[in-house]
Formats: sequence, C-alpha cells, structure tokens
Amino acid sequence: MGIENTLISMRREFHKIAETGWLEFETTTRIIDYLKEMDYKVEYGKAIHGTRMGLPTKEEMVEHSKNLNLKKDYDISEILEGYTGAIAKLETGKPGPTIAMRFDIDSNGVEESSDPTHIPMLRGFRSKNPSSMHACGHDGHTAIGLGVAKWIMKNKETLKGNYILIFQPAEEGVRGAHSIVEKNFLKGVDYFLSGHIGMGVEEGVVALGTTGFLATTKFDIFFKGIPSHAGASPELGRNALLAASSCALNLHTLTQFSSGLSRINVGTLVAGSGRNVVPANAKMQIETRSDNEKTNALLVEKVNMVVEGSAKTFGVDFEIKPAGSAPAYNTYDQDFVYFIKDSLESSGFRTTQGLRLGGSEDVAYMLQDVENTGGKTAYMIFGTNLSAPHHNNLFDFDENVLKLAYDAYTKLIDAINEKKSS
Amino acid sequence: MGIENTLISMRREFHKIAETGWLEFETTTRIIDYLKEMDYKVEYGKAIHGTRMGLPTKEEMVEHSKNLNLKKDYDISEILEGYTGAIAKLETGKPGPTIAMRFDIDSNGVEESSDPTHIPMLRGFRSKNPSSMHACGHDGHTAIGLGVAKWIMKNKETLKGNYILIFQPAEEGVRGAHSIVEKNFLKGVDYFLSGHIGMGVEEGVVALGTTGFLATTKFDIFFKGIPSHAGASPELGRNALLAASSCALNLHTLTQFSSGLSRINVGTLVAGSGRNVVPANAKMQIETRSDNEKTNALLVEKVNMVVEGSAKTFGVDFEIKPAGSAPAYNTYDQDFVYFIKDSLESSGFRTTQGLRLGGSEDVAYMLQDVENTGGKTAYMIFGTNLSAPHHNNLFDFDENVLKLAYDAYTKLIDAINEKKSS
Amino acid sequence: MGIENTLISMRREFHKIAETGWLEFETTTRIIDYLKEMDYKVEYGKAIHGTRMGLPTKEEMVEHSKNLNLKKDYDISEILEGYTGAIAKLETGKPGPTIAMRFDIDSNGVEESSDPTHIPMLRGFRSKNPSSMHACGHDGHTAIGLGVAKWIMKNKETLKGNYILIFQPAEEGVRGAHSIVEKNFLKGVDYFLSGHIGMGVEEGVVALGTTGFLATTKFDIFFKGIPSHAGASPELGRNALLAASSCALNLHTLTQFSSGLSRINVGTLVAGSGRNVVPANAKMQIETRSDNEKTNALLVEKVNMVVEGSAKTFGVDFEIKPAGSAPAYNTYDQDFVYFIKDSLESSGFRTTQGLRLGGSEDVAYMLQDVENTGGKTAYMIFGTNLSAPHHNNLFDFDENVLKLAYDAYTKLIDAINEKKSS
Amino acid sequence: MGIENTLISMRREFHKIAETGWLEFETTTRIIDYLKEMDYKVEYGKAIHGTRMGLPTKEEMVEHSKNLNLKKDYDISEILEGYTGAIAKLETGKPGPTIAMRFDIDSNGVEESSDPTHIPMLRGFRSKNPSSMHACGHDGHTAIGLGVAKWIMKNKETLKGNYILIFQPAEEGVRGAHSIVEKNFLKGVDYFLSGHIGMGVEEGVVALGTTGFLATTKFDIFFKGIPSHAGASPELGRNALLAASSCALNLHTLTQFSSGLSRINVGTLVAGSGRNVVPANAKMQIETRSDNEKTNALLVEKVNMVVEGSAKTFGVDFEIKPAGSAPAYNTYDQDFVYFIKDSLESSGFRTTQGLRLGGSEDVAYMLQDVENTGGKTAYMIFGTNLSAPHHNNLFDFDENVLKLAYDAYTKLIDAINEKKSS
Repeated sequence: MGIENTLISMRREFHKIAETGWLEFETTTRIIDYLKEMDYKVEYGKAIHGTRMGLPTKEEMVEHSKNLNLKKDYDISEILEGYTGAIAKLETGKPGPTIAMRFDIDSNGVEESSDPTHIPMLRGFRSKNPSSMHACGHDGHTAIGLGVAKWIMKNKETLKGNYILIFQPAEEGVRGAHSIVEKNFLKGVDYFLSGHIGMGVEEGVVALGTTGFLATTKFDIFFKGIPSHAGASPELGRNALLAASSCALNLHTLTQFSSGLSRINVGTLVAGSGRNVVPANAKMQIETRSDNEKTNALLVEKVNMVVEGSAKTFGVDFEIKPAGSAPAYNTYDQDFVYFIKDSLESSGFRTTQGLRLGGSEDVAYMLQDVENTGGKTAYMIFGTNLSAPHHNNLFDFDENVLKLAYDAYTKLIDAINEKKSS
Repeated sequence: MGIENTLISMRREFHKIAETGWLEFETTTRIIDYLKEMDYKVEYGKAIHGTRMGLPTKEEMVEHSKNLNLKKDYDISEILEGYTGAIAKLETGKPGPTIAMRFDIDSNGVEESSDPTHIPMLRGFRSKNPSSMHACGHDGHTAIGLGVAKWIMKNKETLKGNYILIFQPAEEGVRGAHSIVEKNFLKGVDYFLSGHIGMGVEEGVVALGTTGFLATTKFDIFFKGIPSHAGASPELGRNALLAASSCALNLHTLTQFSSGLSRINVGTLVAGSGRNVVPANAKMQIETRSDNEKTNALLVEKVNMVVEGSAKTFGVDFEIKPAGSAPAYNTYDQDFVYFIKDSLESSGFRTTQGLRLGGSEDVAYMLQDVENTGGKTAYMIFGTNLSAPHHNNLFDFDENVLKLAYDAYTKLIDAINEKKSS
Repeated sequence: MGIENTLISMRREFHKIAETGWLEFETTTRIIDYLKEMDYKVEYGKAIHGTRMGLPTKEEMVEHSKNLNLKKDYDISEILEGYTGAIAKLETGKPGPTIAMRFDIDSNGVEESSDPTHIPMLRGFRSKNPSSMHACGHDGHTAIGLGVAKWIMKNKETLKGNYILIFQPAEEGVRGAHSIVEKNFLKGVDYFLSGHIGMGVEEGVVALGTTGFLATTKFDIFFKGIPSHAGASPELGRNALLAASSCALNLHTLTQFSSGLSRINVGTLVAGSGRNVVPANAKMQIETRSDNEKTNALLVEKVNMVVEGSAKTFGVDFEIKPAGSAPAYNTYDQDFVYFIKDSLESSGFRTTQGLRLGGSEDVAYMLQDVENTGGKTAYMIFGTNLSAPHHNNLFDFDENVLKLAYDAYTKLIDAINEKKSS
Repeated sequence: MGIENTLISMRREFHKIAETGWLEFETTTRIIDYLKEMDYKVEYGKAIHGTRMGLPTKEEMVEHSKNLNLKKDYDISEILEGYTGAIAKLETGKPGPTIAMRFDIDSNGVEESSDPTHIPMLRGFRSKNPSSMHACGHDGHTAIGLGVAKWIMKNKETLKGNYILIFQPAEEGVRGAHSIVEKNFLKGVDYFLSGHIGMGVEEGVVALGTTGFLATTKFDIFFKGIPSHAGASPELGRNALLAASSCALNLHTLTQFSSGLSRINVGTLVAGSGRNVVPANAKMQIETRSDNEKTNALLVEKVNMVVEGSAKTFGVDFEIKPAGSAPAYNTYDQDFVYFIKDSLESSGFRTTQGLRLGGSEDVAYMLQDVENTGGKTAYMIFGTNLSAPHHNNLFDFDENVLKLAYDAYTKLIDAINEKKSS
C-alpha cells in the first residue's frame, strides 16, 4: 500500500473512533501501537503531563472506558485516567538538529451527521461514538503524524540529529499543550513544526507564517448557595442562579480596553434544580481573549473580581476552575519563513502568505517555548476543500491534503538536515 | 383479603410503577382495569381533558411508552399522548346528592433511594422507573380512591344519588386539575371531597377545613437569539443568555405588594451551547405565588412585561409557555366543617383544626368550581408518620393511613346520604 | 389671650420659621426661651444627645446659621452644631408618677406653596425659609407641647410626681429619637404620652392605641471608584455608576420573607461627573422596612452583603452611612387604652379605635424604652381636616385641633394624677 | 499695537467672558462687532444653523442673558435663543480658490481656579462667569480667527478667490459643527483649514496631517415612571431608577465588535426624588464611540434597543435625545500634507508628523463635507506649553502660540494663492 493509501486508511480508522479531549483512550493506544511497531521509544501517561486543565469528570472517564475493549501488553491505567496522548522519540546518534513536531489528536463534542451523502457515513467510517466527531481534521493530523513517523524511521540512517513527535490530546478548549510544555519536552528543540489542514486556504496550497493567535483563558465558574422552598421560606435560600446572572451581565461590561482587542463570553449557564426551589447551584463556562497577553491578563484579573463580588453579593460560595488557556502569538520570523518558502517552492509546492488566525490554538505555548530558547518555529496551513465549516456536523475534507502535508513535513526535515550540514 | 391488605397491596403496586405527570400510562391503564372490573363506567383520554399545561415533549412520551408492555382490549392511543387519568361514574338511579371525589395519581421526578433500610427497597416495591418516585404519597391516594370505589359499588343498592371518582394526573406542578375542570365534570356536584396524607398532621388524626392554598402560576420562558463565534464576530450574535440573566434579576425585583404576600422564583436557567459561541438559546422555569388572586394576577402581568422587555433589550425572540397554575383558596365553610367533624368524631375518629397549607394544590380549581355552583367541599389531611419530608428520596409513610382515609371517605358518604334523606 | 389663641399664635410663629431636621436652630432657641420664661429647668445641646443619624453637612449648618440673627444670653454654640431640641423638667416634690411627653419640632424639605388660597400664605405665616415647610404638623405639635408645659407649671401645686417634656428634633427621616433615648431620659418614666395630628382621623376625634409602626432602617450608600477618559483609556477607570446600578437592582431582589412584610427602596441614585468620564462616584439613599424587627434586621444584613459585593465586583470602595432608623411597634396595652378611653370619654371627648400606622415613626424607640422598664405608653392621633395630604406643599390643618390635643394631654395628666392617688 | 499684542489682548478679552456651548451670547456679539468693524459681511442667527443638538434649556438661556448688558444696533434676538456663532465672508472679485477656515469659540463647564498663581487670575482676566471657563483654548482660537480675518481684509487687494471664516459655537460635546454644515456653508470650498492649540505638541511646532478622529454619538436618555409610597404601596409605582440601572448595565455589555474599536459610557445617572418614594424619573448622559462609522452606527442601533427594552421591562416611558455627534475621520491626503509641510518649512516653521487624535472633534463633519466635493483639508495642531491638562481648572497656555498659529494660517493662504496662480 502506497503512503497515500496508508494515510487515508489511518485517517479513517481514527475518524471512526473519534474521542474528545482527555478521553482519547482508544486513539492513544492505537497511536502507541503504531509507534511501537515502527520501533520508536514511546512515552505516555503521567510521564508526559504536568497540570491538565478542563478534565472531564471521573464518571465520564469510567463511562467512556466501559465502551472500549482495550487489552494491551502494556499498562494503560494512567491513560484511562485521562493522561492521554503520546510522544515518540528517535535519536539518530549523529550530531544534528533536534526537530520536534506536534499533531493534535482529539475530536469535537459534536454528533456526526448520518446524512447518506456525508462521505464518512457513505464510506462507513462515521464516528462510532455518540456526541464525538472529528469535525476539525485532527484525525487527519494524527494520520499525517504517523506517516511522518514512518518516513523518519525509514530514513533514520541518512538523517542526523534527534526527532520528537508529539501526539497532543485536548487541543479543543486549548487544554492539552501547556500540560506537555510543563514537562519540558521542548527544551533544546532547534526546529518546531506544526500545522492545520483546512482553515479556508486554497486546495493544494501551503500557507506559511501564521500569526494572530489570540491569547485566551477558559474558566469554569461554580456558585454554590443554599436551597429552600421558594414559596414557604425564600429567605432561607442563598440564590446561586441570581449570583450567576448578575455575574454574567457584569462580566460582559469588562471589555473596553485601549491596549488592544478584548473579548469575553459567558458561553453556557446552567443553574437550579426545580421550579419551586431557590436555586443552590450554578455553573458557567466562560472565556476571555485578547490580541496581547497583558490585556488578557488584566481582563482575567477583572473577571476574578466580578466572580468574587457576585458571590459576595448573594452570599454564596464560588469556585473558579481553569479550563484551558493559550497565549497570544504574533511572531513572524521572516528568515525562517523564507527558508521554508524556498524549500517548498523549489520542490514544486504552491505556497501563500500566512493567515492571521483570529482565534486561539494552544500550540502557541509550544511555539513560544521553542522560540524562548532560540529555536525556530513554523505553523503551516495545508489548504483543502471542505464540505462544511470546521466544527459542523457535516465537516469533511479532501483526503489529498494528507499527502500534501506529509510531503511538506518530510521535505522540510530533509531541508533542515541539509541546512545544518552546510 | 381484607380491605386493609387490599389497600396496602394496591399502594405498593402503584408505588412500583411510579410515573410523573402526563406520563401516567401504566398507572392510568391499571386504574381503568380496576374500575372496569368493578363495573364502573369509565371515561379517559381526550374525553376528560381540556387544555393541558406543562406537558413533557413528544419524545419523552414515546421514550417512556417504549418501556411499557401495554396490551389492552381498549384503545389506549390517547393515553399514550398524555391524556392520562380516568373518571369513574356511578348513578344509583335513586334521587340524592352528587358526590365527587378527587385522587391524584402522579409521582415526583426524584430518583428513589436504594438504601436497604428504605421500606420500599426492603419490601421490593421501590420504583422501577428511573427518576420517578412516589415521594408525595399519591400512590396512597390512588389506592384509597380505588378502595372507596369498591366500597361504593358494593353499597350501591343502599346509596342514593350519583358518584364521580376523579383520578387526576399531573398534580405536581399544578398542571392537571384545570384541564379536567374545563370539561365540566364538576358542574352540578353537591359534595366534593378530597385530601392528602401526611403533611405533618399527627398519626391517626384527620385535619379538617384546610385553607391557605396559595395562588400560583408556572411558566416556562424561552429566549432565542443568534449564535456567532464569540472571538471572531461577537457583534453578529444575539445573546439569549444575557437576556435571560437580565430577565431573572429583574423578575426578582417585582415582589413588593401591599395587597398581600407575593413570591417569584426563577427556579432553573439553562442557556448556551458552548464556551466560545454567543449563546443563542435560554430556558427558564419560573413560578409566581400569592395568597390572593388579584396580587398574583398583577404579578403575572409584570412578569410578562419583564420578559418582553428583556428580549427587546438584547434583540432576541421570546416565548412564555404556561406550565401550571392553581388558584388561591381560603374558604372556610364553618357549617360543613362542623358537619364533617361531628360525623367523624361520632364514629370514633380523632380530628383537629385545619391547616393553613402555605403552598399550592390544583385541587383548588375543583374546590372553587364546586363552591361557585353552590356545592359543599372539604379537603382533609390524614395524619401519618413519615420517614422523610415530602419530595425527599427517602419519603415513606405508615400504611395505616390508607385505612384511616378509606374509613373517613366512606363514613362521610354515609353521613351525606343520611343527611340528604332527612 | 385665651389658651386657644396662644396655641394658634405659637403654631404660626413656628410655622414661619420652619427648619428641617438637625437645623432647628431658631426653633430650638425659641422653645428654650418659652420654657425658661415659664421657669422650667431646660436641658439642650450635647447634654441631650447620643449618636445623631442623618446629619446635614457642616457647610449646610453654617449656611443656615448665617440667615439667623440669634443673640441669646446662654450658649447656643452646640445648638448651631446640630444638637437641636430641648428637654424641660419639673419635679413637684410630691410623691407621684413620672410622666413624659414627646413633641417633634422639625419641618419637611418642601418648598411651601405661595398659592394665594393657601392659608399660611394668605395669613402671612408661610415659611420664610426656602425648601423648608411644616408640611406634617410638627409646628402644631410644638405649640401643643408649649401649651401643655404652661398648664403643668400653672398647676404644679396640685400636681404630684415629675414631668418631662421632650421637644425632639429630626423626626422626619426617623433620625432624632434614638439619640435622645441613648441619653436615658426615659428611664424610670411611668407614663409616656405622644401623638400626631391629622393622619386621616375624623375632625374632633381622638384615636387611641395606635399600632403598626414599621421597623425601618435608612442608609446613605457611597461608591468611590477611579475616573478615566471613557474614550481613550476606559480600562483605567473603576466604575462607581455601574457598581451602584448593579447594587440597586440586586437590592431589589431581597424582599421575599416568610417571616413578615418586607420592603426595600433605592430612592435616589446620583452618579458620575461627565458624559465622557468613567464615573468615579455614586450615592444612593435607601431604606428597608418590615412589620417586625427580626425580618428588618435580616434584610439589613443582606443589604450590607449586596453593597459590599457590588463594590467588590467593580473594584470600587464603598461606605454605608446610617441615616435614620425606627423600630417596629405593635404593642396594644388594652388596660391602659381603656383607661385613656374612659378618662377622655367621661370628659366629653369622642374617641375611636387606634390606627394601624403602616409607616414608620421614631417615637417607637421611646415607646419601647418606657415599656421595657414597666411604664405605660400611649400614642394618640388627633383628628382634623387637612387641606392636602401630609408632606404636600399645600398641607394645612384646622387649628381647632391644637386645643383638642391640649385638652387631651392635660385631661390625661389629671387622670393619671388621680389614678395614682387612689 | 502689533499683531502679537492684538492677539493676546483679544484672547484675554474672550477668556474673561467665557461662555459654554449655545450660550455664547456676548462672545458672538463681540465677534460680530469685530468683523463688522473690519468690513466683513457677517451672517449669524438662524441664517447659519440647521438642527442644533444638545441645547441648554430655555430657562438657562434666559438666566444667562440676564447677566449681560448687550445693546446692539442689530437684532440679537436669535442669538439670545442660542443661534450663536458667526460666519464672515469676503469675495475678492478675482478668480481663485474658495478658502474656508473654522475657529471654535465655546468654553467648558468648569469653574476656573482662583489660585493666585493661575495666570488668568494673576493678570485679571479670569472668567467672570461661574462654572464657565476657557479650559481648552477656544479663546485663543477665536483670537487667531479674528487676527486672520484682519490680515485677509488688509490683503484683499492682492488676494484672489473667496474667504469664509466660520466662528463655530458648541464644539464641546460635538454639538455645533453639524448644524452649520447642514446649511451648506462648505459647498464649493476648495481648501479648508482648521486646527487646535496645545494637545501635547512641542512648543513652537506645527503638527500636520491629524487623523484618528473617533466617530461619536452623544445621547441624553430619560425614563419616566410613576411615583408611589415605597412602604405603603410599592406596587403602584413604576420604577425609573431600576429601568435606568438595568439599562446602564446592559448598555455596557454592547462593546464587542470585530469591525473596530468600540466604546460606550454612561457618564452620569441621576434618578429619584426621595428615599421613601418609588423613583419616577431618571436621566442618563451617554456616549458611544468607534474608529469607524459603521461600527458606531451599529452600536447606536443596539443602544436604542437596550433603552427601549429597559423601559418596557419596568413599564416606564423613555426618551432618547441626541446631544451631539461627530464622524470618524482618518483621511491622510499625503500630497496636501506635503504641500503644507513644504510651505511652512520653507518659511522657517518647525513641523512634525500628525497626531492620531484618539478623541472626537466635530470639525470632522466639515473635513468630510469639503473632501466629499473634492476639496483639500488640513487640521493642524499648534504646539505650546500648557500649565495643566485640557479641561482642567488650571489650564493655561503660552500665548506665543497665538502668533504661531496666525503665521501658519496666513502663510498657507499665501501659499495657496500662489499655488493656484501657477
């Protein structure tokens, strides 16, 4: 089977077992199996994680693991506690650069369409898991990562330096990258490559020099009051619903900053237990964003104040749980972008100037970490036709993009190897 | 089997198949079966209902009906559409009073405890349905009603006048009574008897002349906006969560009335679809209460204003769906209360002065309807020891109360029969 | 000049110099002059006050004192600092009861009508002070008190026991009574009499046994933030206007109590300095009320919480300044009410059953204080025709009521003297 | 007297009679007197105004006019109704460009400092009017305009084309420019010059090519409810204070736009009449801003929605009164800026690159109007040392700037005359 078919086959395999952030149990073990089969040294479980944000509940983990039949000859107990993802390493033994790559592996909390014209339905690889669908192409990223891993291993005799392939969980909600960065996997990395398929870039084109990653902080906010009968003894209750309502409104008054763009969103609010009970609990999922770190940090400070004040106002307890975060990233390393451009175009690739993302991606933690120690980074967008927007339940992409991305990664590894040798 | 054991056996039967309001499919058909077996003329389905409030969704109805295996020799299709409950009638053919009685049959949306010391668990009649438990004694009311029906039929030769036994669905949430009243089942009724077990009255005692039924109106409120990406294009969204939050706060400013007690409660609020999406939908379950009709009506008027204004403020659509209601009831017919007191005490009953309910019960629609056409009414509380408060998942009662209530109803029917003949 | 004319003349004198709470500089000195002339021992200034609430500013005091030309042979410096009011005492030297009476002396912050048909205008005794008018009859109360003082002194040889006449400042806003009570002027008092003219009682009738005084607490609330240019650097501001707005809304959600009537009112809100400046200051005048102490105290506790929480939410400072208070008073001493009724009716008075006040009066502090040490109290309403409602700028009363009240007080003093001797 | 002294003398004259927007009665008549004396044809009153925004009340106009002793041989009645400002025109009779200039003449609502070190105090030209001070240098602008007018008239034989000098009222609050633009005074203008002194530009330097004028809309918002006694009958009131509070909070949730910067400010809120009265009136002064017209227009649309919704919520009436507005202005006509730069520098001026204003100025209406018909415009900042920030009560400027600005204007008129002739 040629690499093209291998990539497609793997992509469909992972599409079918779509698992959301921190629940990538089957996804992770299959990645480990592939990497071990290729002879990589693979790290996983607690070994690769610092502080994880935005975890599902223990119950959700147990529930999801029940549906799987995972018998492995290695210990997967940590994986089943949500220490998902895997990191493969190869040291060639020859002096040379350390090149790291990152591929995100999680799905979206979306029920996949069963429309008969939807290709995954038609071809039989629709997600088997309810409310879990690869609607952002991370199934493709996983396949590309494994394809590149295979290529590296096949060429290990001619390659120099060291290779680190990061299969990162929980990118959705920007929850997984920081946990891996904390474990120092990117210290000493000379070159860091990552990317995304789709995003509106033209089919067959590679966009270079992506910037405009917004800083973002995600929180889950909890208010806990005291229930009481709303008719008979309303004064005995402490109303968590009103605390949350007042909090939501007041949070939305915070976004006027002269220092840059700022955003807040109370995305969900769930409060109360019954029509005739003073509501004793409320939960909100919120996020802040800015095009710069400082503004986002100031905004987060104000958010904390509003939450505490709202709780105080209604005499309820509160908790603010970090649920995800990503830094702003606006670096544009013109030299390295030109190097990539030349490398790719001289091999027949069509390239275009980088996007301003206008959203958030936690790969930015990795980009920052590498650049802070003098490394070079690139985040590419691999253009392809999409059947529906990202995160839509009809999302699908032209599978040709898998080979395009595979070619780009491997071509760049070659180019970096040559560059260093010069 | 003596009547005592019959009542207990039926109570346990209905306890085990606990079904919440408008979903009393199995409960209703078993009631019909019992009544038909006794030779009653039974009405059910659309024949007994006007406008039903606070219905579950069609999906919930279909889902619940799947769990049941109901094969009947009569058409139950209307029952499965939520036209639950049944009304049995007997005409003795002899001139005499028309006596109506009402027994409510629905359960609460509570998951019954599986604590081994909980009697229904211990004796094997714990609710078989998840999130549905008889935690307010309506299983007992149903059994009492069927017991009384049996007694009437057995004594039909000596009794005069006409008998109407109403097995009412959906008392919880005050949703079912008005629907039956609309169909004029209480027109021409001379005597109306109803009651409740428990409520803090001493074991073995019957409390007479209950008043203090609060007027209440229940609403479901929906806001519908427009979703948009909270980071990329917040201005395109119309925020239903903020509309609901502002609405909830402003509703709670409405309860200052010099004309009587007034209450409002936004019991639940659920809004939004994801952390990074401008929330396009919100739902609130609310209720108002007052000790008088006029104040409650004024409050409801103000509620409508606040909901409409909140929607306008955030440019979203709204819908206000009635979900239940009960009138205030404070009548105290001293003559009739004394008649009952004398009748019961002369037969050895212990009685006590009526409670002020301080809550809402939709039987008040029936009490009003009968009194408006000159009939007499009584709402009794049958005292018994409780294992836990009403609506608690450990609620249970001393089954002796079934016989107490049965005796009281039948004794009063006798007394009324004698009274009229004099 | 007969007592009737004396009363009218004094009433008009005080009407013309109407002074609002704590600014009764001229009013107080004229009262002192009258009492000294009668040969009373008079106390005033700091000697009669504990903690005063709801004071005007020092500037307002200085400003008001400028308009007056007060040359006295006694030191009035404390009076000009707002230690207004006066207390006259007489000890007869004969054993007997201690009888205290209270007359309030302050005016309302209302600009008196200059309509030519308004009697005070027509007869030339319209208030000479801008925005200060006797629109609640305290000018009458003052005249009655001085009349009664005169009668007591004239009859001192035949009277027994001790007499205390309290001319209380700042009743409007319920600010002055507690300050006097703190100084223990009511300790050891056997009988306490007070009253009010008007209030809807029929001309010539005395209403006995007033109850239904609502507990009330008045606050001034201040928020202090940081100003900044609203266009150029909004994030530097701390918004006191939004803190106050959120506070006002949330305060109005607090009034659901099963333990009694409860009321809150944010009566005024003034915030901000200019259209384009983030508002750095806000002031609110609020009050709570209840028909019982406990509910009012709980409500006040919640108010404090909301104010503190609102300040916290917007990162501003706050201050809560007590501005007045009165307790609930619902006592009905049937024996003493009958004693008064008999005493008055036997002298030809027409009496009626006491009102439920439904408002607040700080005399309730005095009533409580006397009752707590075993004394008897009475608060009478002296019926009269009014030209306009209390506090209206066209308010006036039929001056016949002055003699009615004078007669009632003096008759009761006689009756108590006789009672004690028996 | 040399021009330098004339400018200083006139500046001090206008400083002393400082008058706020639409009340420039004495200011306007003195300008007219000066211009008539120079032999200009002067237009004023209704002739120069369309729709005026943000007018003071009629009472304020009458009150202010009482303080003045204006006897003129021309009709000033329209001026005294707030039709202030004046426009002088000169037609040379020779073909040539039409050059318009705009000088704003109003003061700020600030009480000028009487600190003895404050130059206007020290030299005796402190504002004679209370709460009215030239704290933004428009007194200087007026003097410069009159100086330039004098120069033009003196040189009318050598000059070509037509000259229009606009003395605009009510720039503060961006109220006056649009009213004049409506009357088409700028139609057919080839060159439009205006400017401001101070603004942080270095002493003696002229900043060219100002941009960054923010679009802004100013509103006064009124809510009108129904008062009632807060203790006795709260339900009869319609609460304007709560409507305003809810409105203020909800307005501040509106500023998230992807299409540009957006700002909102509820600068002042005044509501209620007394502590114990349900507040029946509220007034808010608000403004919106954006760096582009479209975003500001969308924001204004949302503001309208929130105000209407808030009124609806609390059942009160509302009124939204326009109080001022200015468009965004970001044009940078590089050619014309270079022409000015060359003209000035060749005459020894020091220039610098234009500011981004970051605020609002209603001259932008005039700049737009001229550019829309193909004219050229320039808005210059004339650098000078300031004693305190603009709008501060100690604001003053180094009077050398008067001559600097005079020289710049006259030099540019010369240059344009020469340019056209080429």
